[in-house]
Amino acid sequence: MKQKAIFYHAGCPVCVSAEQMVAQAIDAERFDVEIVHLGESKGRVGEAEAAGVKSVPALVIAGQPYHINFGASIEALK
Amino acid sequence: MKQKAIFYHAGCPVCVSAEQMVAQAIDAERFDVEIVHLGESKGRVGEAEAAGVKSVPALVIAGQPYHINFGASIEALK
Repeated sequence: MKQKAIFYHAGCPVCVSAEQMVAQAIDAERFDVEIVHLGESKGRVGEAEAAGVKSVPALVIAGQPYHINFGASIEALK
Repeated sequence: MKQKAIFYHAGCPVCVSAEQMVAQAIDAERFDVEIVHLGESKGRVGEAEAAGVKSVPALVIAGQPYHINFGASIEALK
C-alpha cells in the first residue's frame, strides 16, 4: 500500500519552488502525494497544525512534518 | 539523464528522521541521490555552502537548496 505524503503550501514563491522540486521528486510508485493549498483550503489548516506543521511549505510523510525552507507561518494562514 | 539530489546531514536526530523519510522518498528512477555526512566529510562543507545550504538537514536538487526542519547550522560544522 502506498504511503501518504501531503505537501502543504500557500502559493508563495518559496512554496512554488519547493513544490516543483521536492514534492515532484517524490516517488509516486511508493507515495500517494497530495498537494494542499492552505490559502484556498482554509478548512485544512487545523489538520496541518495537528500534524505539527508550523510553517509552509511543509511535507507531511507518514504523519511526520518536514518544513522545507520558510514561506509563511501557519498562523498567517488562519 | 538523472538529476542530482544531494542530501547533506550531520548525523543529528532531526537529520536521521529527514533522511529516512524525505531523502528515501525521492524517486531513484529520476534522481541520483547522494547522502553526505558533513561531520565526517568536512571537505564538502564548502560545496554545500556554495549551493546555499545554511543548515542541515538540507536537500540540494538541481543546485537549489531546500532546508528541511533544523538540526544544526552549517557554521557549527566547520
